[in-house]
Amino acid sequence: MSETAPGAAAARGPHDQPFQSSEQPPGPGGLGPGELGRIDRYWRAANYLSVGQIYLLDNPLLTEPLRPEHIKPRLLGHWGTTPGLNFVYAHLSRQISRRGTDMMWIVGPGHGGPAAVATAWLDGTYTEIYPEVTRDAEGMRKLFRQFSFPGGVPSHVAPETPGSIHEGGELGYALSHAYGAAFDNPGLVVAAVVGDGEAETGPLAGSWLSDKFVDPVRDGAVLPILHLNGYKIANPALLARIPESDLVAMLRGNGYEPHLVSGDEPEAMHREMAAALDAALDGIEEIRRRAHEDGSAGRDVRWPMIVLRTPKGWTGPKEVDGARIEGTWRSHQVPLSGVRDDPDHLRLLEEWMRGYGPEELFGPEGAPVAEATAVVPEGERRISANPRANGGLLLKDLILPDHRDYAVDVPEPATTASGATGVLGGYLRDVIRANPENFRIMGPDETSSNRLDAVFDATGRAWNAEYRSGDPHLAPDGRVMEVLSEHLCQGWLEGYLLTGRHGLFNSYEAFVHIVDSMLNQHAKWLKVTRGLPWRRPIASLNYLLSSHVWRQDHNGFSHQDPGFIDHVVNKKPEIIRVYLPPDANTLLSTADHCLRSRDYVNVIIAGKQPALNYLSMDEANAHCARGVGIWDWASSDAGEEPDVVLACAGDVPTLEALAAADLLRRHLPELKVRVVNVVDLMRLQPETEHPHGLNEREYDTVFTTDRPVIFAFHGYPWLIHRLTYRRAGHANLHVRGYKEEGTTTTPFDMVMLNDLDRFHLVMDVIDRVPGLGVGAAHLRQHMADERLRCRAHTREFGEDAPDIRDWAWPH
Amino acid sequence: MSETAPGAAAARGPHDQPFQSSEQPPGPGGLGPGELGRIDRYWRAANYLSVGQIYLLDNPLLTEPLRPEHIKPRLLGHWGTTPGLNFVYAHLSRQISRRGTDMMWIVGPGHGGPAAVATAWLDGTYTEIYPEVTRDAEGMRKLFRQFSFPGGVPSHVAPETPGSIHEGGELGYALSHAYGAAFDNPGLVVAAVVGDGEAETGPLAGSWLSDKFVDPVRDGAVLPILHLNGYKIANPALLARIPESDLVAMLRGNGYEPHLVSGDEPEAMHREMAAALDAALDGIEEIRRRAHEDGSAGRDVRWPMIVLRTPKGWTGPKEVDGARIEGTWRSHQVPLSGVRDDPDHLRLLEEWMRGYGPEELFGPEGAPVAEATAVVPEGERRISANPRANGGLLLKDLILPDHRDYAVDVPEPATTASGATGVLGGYLRDVIRANPENFRIMGPDETSSNRLDAVFDATGRAWNAEYRSGDPHLAPDGRVMEVLSEHLCQGWLEGYLLTGRHGLFNSYEAFVHIVDSMLNQHAKWLKVTRGLPWRRPIASLNYLLSSHVWRQDHNGFSHQDPGFIDHVVNKKPEIIRVYLPPDANTLLSTADHCLRSRDYVNVIIAGKQPALNYLSMDEANAHCARGVGIWDWASSDAGEEPDVVLACAGDVPTLEALAAADLLRRHLPELKVRVVNVVDLMRLQPETEHPHGLNEREYDTVFTTDRPVIFAFHGYPWLIHRLTYRRAGHANLHVRGYKEEGTTTTPFDMVMLNDLDRFHLVMDVIDRVPGLGVGAAHLRQHMADERLRCRAHTREFGEDAPDIRDWAWPH
Repeated sequence: MSETAPGAAAARGPHDQPFQSSEQPPGPGGLGPGELGRIDRYWRAANYLSVGQIYLLDNPLLTEPLRPEHIKPRLLGHWGTTPGLNFVYAHLSRQISRRGTDMMWIVGPGHGGPAAVATAWLDGTYTEIYPEVTRDAEGMRKLFRQFSFPGGVPSHVAPETPGSIHEGGELGYALSHAYGAAFDNPGLVVAAVVGDGEAETGPLAGSWLSDKFVDPVRDGAVLPILHLNGYKIANPALLARIPESDLVAMLRGNGYEPHLVSGDEPEAMHREMAAALDAALDGIEEIRRRAHEDGSAGRDVRWPMIVLRTPKGWTGPKEVDGARIEGTWRSHQVPLSGVRDDPDHLRLLEEWMRGYGPEELFGPEGAPVAEATAVVPEGERRISANPRANGGLLLKDLILPDHRDYAVDVPEPATTASGATGVLGGYLRDVIRANPENFRIMGPDETSSNRLDAVFDATGRAWNAEYRSGDPHLAPDGRVMEVLSEHLCQGWLEGYLLTGRHGLFNSYEAFVHIVDSMLNQHAKWLKVTRGLPWRRPIASLNYLLSSHVWRQDHNGFSHQDPGFIDHVVNKKPEIIRVYLPPDANTLLSTADHCLRSRDYVNVIIAGKQPALNYLSMDEANAHCARGVGIWDWASSDAGEEPDVVLACAGDVPTLEALAAADLLRRHLPELKVRVVNVVDLMRLQPETEHPHGLNEREYDTVFTTDRPVIFAFHGYPWLIHRLTYRRAGHANLHVRGYKEEGTTTTPFDMVMLNDLDRFHLVMDVIDRVPGLGVGAAHLRQHMADERLRCRAHTREFGEDAPDIRDWAWPH
Repeated sequence: MSETAPGAAAARGPHDQPFQSSEQPPGPGGLGPGELGRIDRYWRAANYLSVGQIYLLDNPLLTEPLRPEHIKPRLLGHWGTTPGLNFVYAHLSRQISRRGTDMMWIVGPGHGGPAAVATAWLDGTYTEIYPEVTRDAEGMRKLFRQFSFPGGVPSHVAPETPGSIHEGGELGYALSHAYGAAFDNPGLVVAAVVGDGEAETGPLAGSWLSDKFVDPVRDGAVLPILHLNGYKIANPALLARIPESDLVAMLRGNGYEPHLVSGDEPEAMHREMAAALDAALDGIEEIRRRAHEDGSAGRDVRWPMIVLRTPKGWTGPKEVDGARIEGTWRSHQVPLSGVRDDPDHLRLLEEWMRGYGPEELFGPEGAPVAEATAVVPEGERRISANPRANGGLLLKDLILPDHRDYAVDVPEPATTASGATGVLGGYLRDVIRANPENFRIMGPDETSSNRLDAVFDATGRAWNAEYRSGDPHLAPDGRVMEVLSEHLCQGWLEGYLLTGRHGLFNSYEAFVHIVDSMLNQHAKWLKVTRGLPWRRPIASLNYLLSSHVWRQDHNGFSHQDPGFIDHVVNKKPEIIRVYLPPDANTLLSTADHCLRSRDYVNVIIAGKQPALNYLSMDEANAHCARGVGIWDWASSDAGEEPDVVLACAGDVPTLEALAAADLLRRHLPELKVRVVNVVDLMRLQPETEHPHGLNEREYDTVFTTDRPVIFAFHGYPWLIHRLTYRRAGHANLHVRGYKEEGTTTTPFDMVMLNDLDRFHLVMDVIDRVPGLGVGAAHLRQHMADERLRCRAHTREFGEDAPDIRDWAWPH
């Protein structure tokens, strides 16, 4: 085997011996002449660079014997998963070089950072992006030092990692991200490495069936690589400990054809992996060919996948201080923990690293030798350089219809009614039509329930399982993706956005908490990319939350939770936007704005039930641009300093605040009431805290500095306090919102249960405006009586009193 | 067939014909003589009562023709899943009557309320719990009226529903709840109905492998019943549309033996279901027998389950207004929506209800006839009356060792160091020993990582998959349950607690957001049970969050998120408790308190790294009892009014605040500094807002009303403002905490990145205390220089400066 040198064979374990045997002739799908050595050399180089990242501060090429001062003072990193990832990467690169495949990878296993960084450096990509990390000894030194080091790069695959759209920190989303990347990318193969730890998570377990949403004509393919290295942090992994026949059955049941690769002897494993990948990629090509030729959808398809079983910490120390390391959970992190203080450990580390034969892998200046990178494909075909993993590079603006064309006519405020999301549906239908390969809507079976049905005039629901007659708008290439898993919706959409496309996630407000932690991770990703100029801006993650807390009266307490906003606003202000459009036209204006934005998380909360329209389209645009505004038509302060401010945010609170203003106008005509509506919640924060924050003068001009402010809010009331506690008038601010009271009842009873109703708002005004006199006292009693009347009506008839349902602003 | 009468056969569809054919002789496992009719009658009665709940205000027995005024004005409810649930319940009841099985059920499908309520009423349980809902026509009228009616009961199975521990609102947790109920309940069978909608969720998909944690000797059995009715709200269900061979493979791969029951013809379906359940329950008995006889664990077991395929809306209207209803998504909610206004719909409803033959099912007074309830078992064997579904009835206090016995010695504050969770581990070890069938610890593979290893002296990790030599503390009957799924940990623990046992969920702080929505639902459940006297208090849900934001420096930004507290405090104050013990002894005291509590969600955040001890055990108990206290030993105000208050909550913020106080004492000895530590976060809220809230006088005594308060907080700083905005001194309160800045770095660099470090706290004090003079200005500059020094050291050496690491209170 001409390309392997004897190297430091004495120090090598049996697993990392250079191949002494002559290569076999290539069988069908086997490794060709010389390929074995080339792929092994790439793998050894990547392993060497991975170990170096975990341990070394200096002496990267081992040009001198290792000394304690070459070792990092804090050993942070995770060896366990790394050699397997390097192995996968080497073999994927070989396939790309042979086939010219357009391929990405997703590194699911936690702490897989060393592998992704090592391979990107070998490929040359790392140095192209971070020129200071040169492809020489000094660059290698920097590469090693920066890993898990202050000011350096994380131990996970992360935004800083070239070629990745996936953070390997929180586990569960590798497959859904992979599928999201594949949609509308015909020709692309997304290799998704799923660790056997991650495979235990619910979100991952629920992702396997994503294959039922793939259209082999229109979409790319996902190649799952389930990597069974057998252990998590301190436990075996479940899928590595069930009978293999059960594992295969489970995967086949999910629609895959698993190719098994198992072992620990490198030469045999290279051959097996090469053959398995050959078969898998041939299989994908065959599926595509058939789909194009006979137009068949993906229904009868079994997608290839790989099950790769290797020892955890493969090629690392076999035994340290009498305990088995390779092939056990003890290799999860740092197999040799005492290298700085224990000469034996230091010696073992040096033997381990020299065992990879660095002198065969890197030239005297430290650059990888040609034979070590021979498997690397060219340019953008390198996985680490695939532009899809930096989706902003490919981002095309959405072609947006003029949202004003979908406006409802509002000749006078509060005289006509529309369902806001229903109106939006018409706009979204045309967004879909204008962007047939660049926009998708995700949702957990609630697109119809949220009244967006108009989109089905333009497209269907993606579906590649069995069809039956009468099925509702199913289509292999549907642009609406519905599955009863918020995790899948979010993961797909993230993968879709991160590869340069646009989308919208519509969901019930209460249950979007299911993806709280996914939102966290995506917001963190976006924040980090702000500091990485090479990561180009991507389309914002847009949530449309309908079926919200105030109109889940019929579904009861479990469906009532407005806390997603609270969760979202904990993330970096630069990333977060929250909108509460009060009616149909403001929703149109908000949606248009959000679909044009970049690198944000936009949360839009809007109603689906018929509700009053307040603003014409022009007024709505102006109001949304300001984000917060005085509604003169509903106010009685005639531009003067008011006696009280009635503020509101959200469709139902706006209705109640307006009704309260109406009651006050009729019953206490002398009282000067100013009605303020807030669409853009972040306006309330000081400008020092959020880019959208009003400055002091603006805030005080709207809310006054000393008048009582009664604020009717969509969510938990304390959120408004949290946003405004630095404002001048905060001591006078009194907020009504959802205080976790709810049950199965009527819409108006819901607001009454939480003291957000018009009558209670009037009482709040009377309680807080001094010197109102006896007329106000009578009104207060009248309001309390009205509450009792409404409650009694509801309890008797099971519906709201008719005068409540039909309230409109009297003109 | 003697027990069926001709009834109103003319109005019946073919699916609900009373059986005219003679019964076949009972084969092995078949229905015995008369059984077919009895079980069908129960089913028809339950279906009749379900339809009645959805539609009727009055005329419950159809003693007169239906008129519009008998119909509810708002038709809210979900028919689709209901007949299948009733079918399952009838057959489970038959099995219990035959075998005497101790059985619960879990109703996974959303909106399954009508079925659970109808069957509980037929069983008599409903009337025992709610005596006003009598077993006669008037009671039936109330039963119908209350459903999905203001002041009534939800459309989901809910806390109000007898026989349930599971809310059918948010989907995903049916199986994990079932397994949680089964653990440590040998002899129990938990029949878990999983809807084909819920089966698409990640958490449910990840629950199937729970069978690998069941010990057939020590635990009960779960009998999953996957109910494929084919449709969700507006979509087909995935698992109903994949090839049956794939479905079976998937389930077998997860370790189950599926028994298939499929069809729509009632007689055949009764026979099939009876036989399938016979086989499944025989199978469970056989597994148990073998496990007891030969001591074999559950490793080679294939647990029986049922796959039940029936039409959605089975036995309901076939077609309405020309559209197919039965067997399509259109039967999801209310199949006849216009009954009040459309005489045809009204007629169809009457035919539908009469088709069940109410005159054969209920006596003239409205009570069910004996033949309709013949399958119902006796007393507590009725599923609806199983006391395990009201776990508080069975709750036994934990036998708790004296936590003081585990105290670390603290001769003087801040002179010794301990890892708090490590100390707690010893205590938990003995809790496990003392409560061998009543306490479990759940966690996502982090029990060792969180330094609770001492528990493995007392028990193992539950495991019933393959064993290999050298495995770390695995045991079939382990009390520690580790799986890399926060959803499973939470679901199991909820099921375990709701059936009357105790437990602890330990997790990384950042990733507990994964179960935000599950916490929501459990907190809502607890809140509702407060209003249900028959629901007895259960043990609290205890979270131990370690590996928290400040010590995830090495894992990087993705692992840094303290926002779970923010999420939790949005729930009802009566339910929520949050503790931030600053050291080992306060953690012991807190844990002891939480393990004794009932009906709360307790969140404990504690460190796992060696950290200074501040309080002796007696001092810790006193401090935890107060929840907030002045630490005189660290203060320099000598009991006088201080110049500044340095407050802190959390172990790392406490360290930094104490170090800041130390710096101030040394450099500005004239300055009177008061150090306040907060363990019980809810103390900060006004007493009107939270039961633990300090009253005004108490708060002002500790925090003053007018002195600057610099608050070093574990979490997001605005949470402290949200809790204290009504306090007198709020305008003087300045909070430092996590402001979403983080990366891979060192512990001290983490606090510096967020301005929470000792130096910055000193600068904050200097900036806010007026009139400090030139010495303070110099100190301020010195502090800024110290920050630069520390940052530079960290960037150069990759670790914190030694004087930072080794800080202790100088005496």
